[in-house]
Amino acid sequence: MVANLIQAGMEAVENKLRSVVDSDVQLLTDASRHIIASGGKRLRPQIALLAYLAAGGEEWHEVIPLAAAIEMVHTATLVHDDINDHSLTRRGQITVHARWGRTFALLTGDYLFTKVYEMMAPYGAAYNEIMAEACIRLVEGETLQAAAAKAGQMDRETYKAIISRKTASLFDAAARMGAMLAGADEKVVEALAVYAHNLGLAFQMVDDILDIIGDPEKMGKPIGLDVAQHRGFTAIQNGHGATETVMVDEEEAAPPDPLAEMMARLRESGAVEIARLQAVEIAGRARAALVDVPATPVRQALYELVDTVVNRDK
Amino acid sequence: MVANLIQAGMEAVENKLRSVVDSDVQLLTDASRHIIASGGKRLRPQIALLAYLAAGGEEWHEVIPLAAAIEMVHTATLVHDDINDHSLTRRGQITVHARWGRTFALLTGDYLFTKVYEMMAPYGAAYNEIMAEACIRLVEGETLQAAAAKAGQMDRETYKAIISRKTASLFDAAARMGAMLAGADEKVVEALAVYAHNLGLAFQMVDDILDIIGDPEKMGKPIGLDVAQHRGFTAIQNGHGATETVMVDEEEAAPPDPLAEMMARLRESGAVEIARLQAVEIAGRARAALVDVPATPVRQALYELVDTVVNRDK
Repeated sequence: MVANLIQAGMEAVENKLRSVVDSDVQLLTDASRHIIASGGKRLRPQIALLAYLAAGGEEWHEVIPLAAAIEMVHTATLVHDDINDHSLTRRGQITVHARWGRTFALLTGDYLFTKVYEMMAPYGAAYNEIMAEACIRLVEGETLQAAAAKAGQMDRETYKAIISRKTASLFDAAARMGAMLAGADEKVVEALAVYAHNLGLAFQMVDDILDIIGDPEKMGKPIGLDVAQHRGFTAIQNGHGATETVMVDEEEAAPPDPLAEMMARLRESGAVEIARLQAVEIAGRARAALVDVPATPVRQALYELVDTVVNRDK
Repeated sequence: MVANLIQAGMEAVENKLRSVVDSDVQLLTDASRHIIASGGKRLRPQIALLAYLAAGGEEWHEVIPLAAAIEMVHTATLVHDDINDHSLTRRGQITVHARWGRTFALLTGDYLFTKVYEMMAPYGAAYNEIMAEACIRLVEGETLQAAAAKAGQMDRETYKAIISRKTASLFDAAARMGAMLAGADEKVVEALAVYAHNLGLAFQMVDDILDIIGDPEKMGKPIGLDVAQHRGFTAIQNGHGATETVMVDEEEAAPPDPLAEMMARLRESGAVEIARLQAVEIAGRARAALVDVPATPVRQALYELVDTVVNRDK
């Protein structure tokens, strides 16, 4: 029952994502649809929908643009991240940056962000303030991460600040706004926000662990990093076996990734297991927050989502 | 009287621009303040203030964040433009891209855009919908321009579409929202929007003409383009005579500018004069729209602003 509702909601979110990027500037439509079609876990909009349902919401249509906007923020940052990370593939697909070049990737990311704005505008001040705050935290988190990458070092506090801002803030906002839209009282809104914040932290930690010990096959990780070391125009195979032209600047060699470096050190010291235990502990905080949420099948689905996030292998 | 009011308002806008970018991520504060401090004509916020006053608005404080947000949109796009255009200087100052590098410039542009969002949120749905639409048009205009640059050609229709979207849309939104905020009736709102839209078109045409025939000394045009042809780290002198380190990627050579090329052809054919006549004609439409605006000293200031825009030499 809940699964069916969520599936229907997520299909509506997909439709919204695809339709909202329509523009008579064809390149923006094409590049936007390309990154949207490359999929992803769609965890953030799912959290918005679940929070809405958990708080008693019954009008699907009102939460769909909000859920789509949440995912679109994430999508916009992916397009810009791929420029900064010199990534050629994402989710087994060629990146916007690799396919359309840097200038258009930058503009496509900007365009997706204007579409977030467009979808959020009708919700009014309270929601837009929450969303703006989440977006600010996200960019701050990305900046802290890039600064750590440049400095070539990252301590535990910095790592915590980064994942809290770049990942947990948007999870938090998704649940908070979903619950508010359902007319939930303050206590339930806060409970769902705390749930989502901790889920976001655990999600990112597991993500970073999988970057080190995950199965590349299952992860759909970049297969083009070697290609990135070469100059000029080259080609790689995308996830469907088709060959597409990739534009690679001379300077496009992959930079060192401080998270990867830190994780390598952690692995050597056997600390990956400790990190995993911390993720499990934080996931426990997400579960604990649900005590203030009405006991319904939707709450059960929120519990199960925590397990899915922590126990995944991709 | 009007001049004093506008001056006070613009000072409040400057303070807002500077204070709103405060972050505990120091780099974002520094890079944001750098681009804000480099100045500019501040035409867009001025139009918001004038439209507000022309429509009878009397509560300064309510229009300041809106005017600042309008300028911030413009500022954010400048930071991203400088990445795409490989510019090392702007307004006689080193660019964010040149000083902090591409990654941080990209993030700073994103950050400024989140600050637009933050300042606009409290205004509610109607204003945010107008702003979102203006931002979408702006990115579309930039994309059309980049596509024309890549194709190495631009016809009259494309040029018109570009300047309408990348420049006039935001001018339009500034006036429209300023007037709405003052509680103006539909007719006055539309008149001010039409005024600003045409002023934006004329402004951009004059800008493009000055790119060709302007005095580089007065324009504060890039002095670092030759530097951009070289590889690795180099240094240029900024507007204050101080030497700052500039990071230049190997691929950072300035690309051909289709506007410049088109203008070069126009100059050879004596068509710059025709372009100027067209700008004057469009400026006339801006003036004509003011007939539906209450005859006050503020309206007079709006008339005079048209003259300033069309007759400027920088």
